[in-house]
Amino acid sequence: MDFAKATNVTPSSNGFDAEIHSGWDIGGNANGGYLMALAARAMSAASRPHPVSVTAHYLSPGRPGPVHISTDIVKTGRTFTTARATMMGPDKPILELLGCFGELANVAGAVLIDAEPPEMPPPEDCVKLEPSPKGFPPPLMANLDMRMHPEDAGGLAGKPTGEPQTRGWIRLPEEQPVDAFALMLFADAFPPTIFNTALPIGWVPTVEMTTQVRGLPEPGWLRCRFSTRFITGGMLEEDGEIWDQSGRLVALSRQLALTPRNPTSG
Amino acid sequence: MDFAKATNVTPSSNGFDAEIHSGWDIGGNANGGYLMALAARAMSAASRPHPVSVTAHYLSPGRPGPVHISTDIVKTGRTFTTARATMMGPDKPILELLGCFGELANVAGAVLIDAEPPEMPPPEDCVKLEPSPKGFPPPLMANLDMRMHPEDAGGLAGKPTGEPQTRGWIRLPEEQPVDAFALMLFADAFPPTIFNTALPIGWVPTVEMTTQVRGLPEPGWLRCRFSTRFITGGMLEEDGEIWDQSGRLVALSRQLALTPRNPTSG
Repeated sequence: MDFAKATNVTPSSNGFDAEIHSGWDIGGNANGGYLMALAARAMSAASRPHPVSVTAHYLSPGRPGPVHISTDIVKTGRTFTTARATMMGPDKPILELLGCFGELANVAGAVLIDAEPPEMPPPEDCVKLEPSPKGFPPPLMANLDMRMHPEDAGGLAGKPTGEPQTRGWIRLPEEQPVDAFALMLFADAFPPTIFNTALPIGWVPTVEMTTQVRGLPEPGWLRCRFSTRFITGGMLEEDGEIWDQSGRLVALSRQLALTPRNPTSG
Repeated sequence: MDFAKATNVTPSSNGFDAEIHSGWDIGGNANGGYLMALAARAMSAASRPHPVSVTAHYLSPGRPGPVHISTDIVKTGRTFTTARATMMGPDKPILELLGCFGELANVAGAVLIDAEPPEMPPPEDCVKLEPSPKGFPPPLMANLDMRMHPEDAGGLAGKPTGEPQTRGWIRLPEEQPVDAFALMLFADAFPPTIFNTALPIGWVPTVEMTTQVRGLPEPGWLRCRFSTRFITGGMLEEDGEIWDQSGRLVALSRQLALTPRNPTSG
């Protein structure tokens, strides 16, 4: 299913109606990046065209079906509009968001880039993740074209590398354009970094995620790198960078997640 | 002035009354970390004792005087309570916040720490920042005990090192206890990393800041490191780590800021 269709929003009373589509999930729960993209699309429709920095707190799992996204403009400034939003499911809130929106086409070039895009083999030499009837890799992978760096794919095969890092290429299938909202999806689409640690593999619930979009990507493959430095007190961060084909950093992300748990234990 | 007194909040209709005290400012505008600490104190009083992850969007400068902090509980879960808040000044909103709160005393120890506290000379061999009658270092420094790593102090003397990094020690004066809210102050108290770049020195307005608190610090000096990797399109991030005397990471922060501008140009 096209990403644009899957994140379509329709104006309604006090916000927007939308639908969590099936096929964007992991074990029945919609991917967190997909949910953020859907809500940010509504916030943007109420404010300015591009997300600059959006924070989402994850309140309950998003299941396929209709949702309502209420939006409130907090402040309209000269450069940015700040907005908040609540994504409501049939019986409880799914996401609460706060973000600012602007026009990224207007931004000037880089002054300093003190980091390099991750070095990776070409996409055809990486590990393509495709949905498995067993549930993992998840159904989401049918809506993405994701290629993991072979050095980081050990965790998926039950052979963790010991390094909580995930690098890979990503794009939307069939040359769909990648907009700033798709970057939010990509920032939470790769397997968790900690699949490469000794922690048990399981659901890694996101508590909070902030994605900064620095620029609109050029068409083509995006290079991503996610890493975790601190797993303390049952919590961990996952920091992400997304680079476009021209070597420009287009997004930075950080999420706070809980260490893996059995999905059935809630 | 004591930090606890400077961040005191009093329940009132639909939230809390508080005061932005003078002496916590840079050029007349209250420090962003101080404002976040004050608002988070109110959010915590309405929810659970410790901030776990708090995001603030900065809408207008905070001037000394009374403010009202309205708080809304978004969700009360088993482990965390999610809340949002608005800090209103006399005529316009100053901060909009979203965060989750819990009980950090309950958290277990570290599973993985893939980083080290910054190496620094002892505090007495570092550069103590004290308020200058010329306005910089700012009045805020009278309410903090801050010692910058000598290698990073070049920018303050008009001799930028070229490396957008700020390391240093920090504590509250007169052995005041450091709670989770003081960590939010500390996460935004050091001179901007980019004072060590070729960019002109000026006001670096924070757009958004997220601080994660991972644990309550042991008494004593805290070690901090702030760094910037990407200055693009007029925006930059500043990533912070705060470590306690026992070598535990107690907070992670990231802010999105605009490149320096002349304070008078707004």
